[in-house]
Amino acid sequence: MRVRVAEVAKLLEGRIIGDPELELTGISSLTEAGPGDVSFLANPKYAPHLADTRAAAVLVDSPHDASHLVQIVVANPDWAFAQLVSAFGPQPGRLPIGVHPTAVIGDGVTLGEQVAIGAYVVIGEGAIIGDNCRIHAHAFIGDDATLGTACTIHPHVTVREGCQLGNKVIIHSGAVIGSDGFGYASVEGVHHKIPQVGIVVVGDDVEIGANTTIDRARFGKTIIGAGSKLDNLVQIAHNVEVGRGCIITAQCGIAGSTTLGSYVTIAGQSGLSGHITIGDQAIIAGQSGVTKNVPAKAVIQGSPATNINDFRKGVINVRRMPQTIAAVKQMEQRLATLEARLAELEGTTGDAS
Amino acid sequence: MRVRVAEVAKLLEGRIIGDPELELTGISSLTEAGPGDVSFLANPKYAPHLADTRAAAVLVDSPHDASHLVQIVVANPDWAFAQLVSAFGPQPGRLPIGVHPTAVIGDGVTLGEQVAIGAYVVIGEGAIIGDNCRIHAHAFIGDDATLGTACTIHPHVTVREGCQLGNKVIIHSGAVIGSDGFGYASVEGVHHKIPQVGIVVVGDDVEIGANTTIDRARFGKTIIGAGSKLDNLVQIAHNVEVGRGCIITAQCGIAGSTTLGSYVTIAGQSGLSGHITIGDQAIIAGQSGVTKNVPAKAVIQGSPATNINDFRKGVINVRRMPQTIAAVKQMEQRLATLEARLAELEGTTGDAS
Amino acid sequence: MRVRVAEVAKLLEGRIIGDPELELTGISSLTEAGPGDVSFLANPKYAPHLADTRAAAVLVDSPHDASHLVQIVVANPDWAFAQLVSAFGPQPGRLPIGVHPTAVIGDGVTLGEQVAIGAYVVIGEGAIIGDNCRIHAHAFIGDDATLGTACTIHPHVTVREGCQLGNKVIIHSGAVIGSDGFGYASVEGVHHKIPQVGIVVVGDDVEIGANTTIDRARFGKTIIGAGSKLDNLVQIAHNVEVGRGCIITAQCGIAGSTTLGSYVTIAGQSGLSGHITIGDQAIIAGQSGVTKNVPAKAVIQGSPATNINDFRKGVINVRRMPQTIAAVKQMEQRLATLEARLAELEGTTGDAS
Repeated sequence: MRVRVAEVAKLLEGRIIGDPELELTGISSLTEAGPGDVSFLANPKYAPHLADTRAAAVLVDSPHDASHLVQIVVANPDWAFAQLVSAFGPQPGRLPIGVHPTAVIGDGVTLGEQVAIGAYVVIGEGAIIGDNCRIHAHAFIGDDATLGTACTIHPHVTVREGCQLGNKVIIHSGAVIGSDGFGYASVEGVHHKIPQVGIVVVGDDVEIGANTTIDRARFGKTIIGAGSKLDNLVQIAHNVEVGRGCIITAQCGIAGSTTLGSYVTIAGQSGLSGHITIGDQAIIAGQSGVTKNVPAKAVIQGSPATNINDFRKGVINVRRMPQTIAAVKQMEQRLATLEARLAELEGTTGDAS
Repeated sequence: MRVRVAEVAKLLEGRIIGDPELELTGISSLTEAGPGDVSFLANPKYAPHLADTRAAAVLVDSPHDASHLVQIVVANPDWAFAQLVSAFGPQPGRLPIGVHPTAVIGDGVTLGEQVAIGAYVVIGEGAIIGDNCRIHAHAFIGDDATLGTACTIHPHVTVREGCQLGNKVIIHSGAVIGSDGFGYASVEGVHHKIPQVGIVVVGDDVEIGANTTIDRARFGKTIIGAGSKLDNLVQIAHNVEVGRGCIITAQCGIAGSTTLGSYVTIAGQSGLSGHITIGDQAIIAGQSGVTKNVPAKAVIQGSPATNINDFRKGVINVRRMPQTIAAVKQMEQRLATLEARLAELEGTTGDAS
Repeated sequence: MRVRVAEVAKLLEGRIIGDPELELTGISSLTEAGPGDVSFLANPKYAPHLADTRAAAVLVDSPHDASHLVQIVVANPDWAFAQLVSAFGPQPGRLPIGVHPTAVIGDGVTLGEQVAIGAYVVIGEGAIIGDNCRIHAHAFIGDDATLGTACTIHPHVTVREGCQLGNKVIIHSGAVIGSDGFGYASVEGVHHKIPQVGIVVVGDDVEIGANTTIDRARFGKTIIGAGSKLDNLVQIAHNVEVGRGCIITAQCGIAGSTTLGSYVTIAGQSGLSGHITIGDQAIIAGQSGVTKNVPAKAVIQGSPATNINDFRKGVINVRRMPQTIAAVKQMEQRLATLEARLAELEGTTGDAS
């Protein structure tokens, strides 16, 4: 890249403190930046790095005392930097428009305009691939699956038959969309497989992490709402419904038929029982085990999960249990002493009476 | 589908309450059903939906007060519905009998009758594929691996060299059977890899979930017993032995050389230490951490896991710790008061004597 | 195999107790060994099996009372046995030197000497593959990725564009190296994707388990230090730095920008928060949740994690809470009794005065 500070500020609607004509040649973090790089400060924890960064310019949310570099003041440095990288940074995995000669395209497949389909991609009969989709090497798209426009499917993704993706969906390598739900009818010691004949429906602007698994519904739909983001190694069981704009971080698991409202946040390695409901904007802290319905905007933690403040008090109380136990023991001694003294006194006053 | 109630009842050995000639045209859940659909009621929690379902008929385990729809009374509505779906519902991922021209079949491979092998499947030298196996696109079957009859291998499965699957085994996308066990001999700061030269043996009627990993034995066998069902993202380490009919739900992990009896149930995200034994029919609740042997039929929970009743009492006791601590503080005050009063009395009676 | 005890002892620098001319024909565990097999005893727990093993010879770290079999005394039976298996045992997944005709090799790829590249491997433009690398079927190596010498890439591995592997790296099936980090700038209810334009750098002698995921850096590098070993289904987020010689067992997750020193051990299913530092040789017990910096050589457990001794005391204290609560209740009764007796006495002495 080779771009002036003034151009960057214009793109990001930022205010310049310093030389607008300075030329920027790279993008990096504060600690790794070299001369000519533009960087950013979003987390105040890293503010001390402003003093010794070698960056030429930095995106900030308010002016800092750092006259040795150009500052560009923007509302949200994180998001501004992301836009900068999108505009001027390196582009991910190249894939030329067109269908690689090794791709196997089933009968009746509909391919949109400007699609890019990589080596050894397999697309099943009747599938529909929207305009501008990029399907990387080795991806598998099952029969009658549908992709909206501008989806990015990374290498080794599996989208099983009949599943439906919206527009601008991104699926990372190894993710599996539409594997069978885990359901059996156990009769006299035999677990009979219950057919899983539903599908998975993924909304617009959803991103799904590497090796995440989303099971198809027993019947009907497993749903991932528009704008939701799933990290790596997440498990979504059959008939789960995830609302809009949810954030589900790595290694979380959601059991069957549970419903999430909108803008729910679930931190890493949490597990949710089946058949429960999580209200809008609820926040579930990491490693929680959620076994009951959660009201909207609740913040919970623990296994089993409870209100986060109660959880924290519980942790503190367990840690101070040695003191509590010691206090009880000491009180028992004081009690015994009192009892002895009182008995003596009762004897005395008995004598006296 | 287009089938009369009488035919359904005959297939399921059910008793009809209502019109046996009614024609059914679809299969769905109570809440999603439309006119003409047959549905089912297995979980009593959903009984209220009988009143407003649009289904035409419903499988139940006993007659309900719902004269607006035909009831078919069966012993196990869950399992009956599963049979119904198998008989009349949509069929999963089509795969024509025969070997796709792009499949790479190694020297000395034995293919059974009526096998279906998809695009870009790779089968290593000396492998044996039983009759009626269906191996979907991109699956990898290593050298000398063996599959029994009627196995279903979904896209992107890896079965490493030498591993052995029984009959009617189902493996979902991304699962890895026979990766190396995790073993090192650490000598002077270097972790030397210990060769893992054993195999994985999977019994008949086992189902293995998407992106689940089962490591090959250091030597000998890692074993998954007949009829056991593993959900997605499960980790089975080297030399583990899982008995018959076990249920292991998503994201559980079992460390090396641990042995499970028959019909053990492990709920989601639990972890088992290595070199322990879990008795027949034991039940391990979700997110447990099991570090010791578990007797048959025990029900345990927690990390570290303990008897489920003790675990629950522990949770309650931690939650009521604020009251306990308050009680202790209040008692201390009462004690101090008593001590003061007693001291005064001792002085008084001393004076009096 | 067919090798004399004397040859084995020479290879392992061991001392023979028994017949050096005995011929060994196989390698197995104590319990599974048959006549002619050589086995080993590393874990004292299994010493009783010496009495009834059918093995002909056994590696031990000191002489045992077992005159029915030949003993070879070595410093580290575990490691010695590993060397034995490497020298004489079965070899893993064969792959002939050369490039399989179905492999798709991009423009400008550099292939080293003696590489073995399997069926349907895809290697992107500009990638560099070192000497003696073995890349199994279906692996995907992205544009400009680099592999050092003697790497082993198992079937269905994904190494995304630009990522760099050192020498003798082993990656198991389904692992994903270089998926996008999980980062969004949320503006007015929309989670805007933050481009992840960094890479993953994997040091020499690293082994990465099946279906493990390692995200590329937001910018800069996610780093796995030389000699570190990662088990299956591990999650490494963007910009994490793992030091040298670390052991990370199955299903652990490390959140973004966290740094591990050297020789850190993390037991299964533990989770580490982002932006924290773990000191050299720290040990994190299984299922821990680490939310704060951990000093070197600390041993911690729990969620949230604390010193392992404090954690264990906490577990014991919670389990004995019923006794504590009972003691408190009993003391309350004693207090009430005392208060009543004292009041009576005060009345009495009042009367008496």
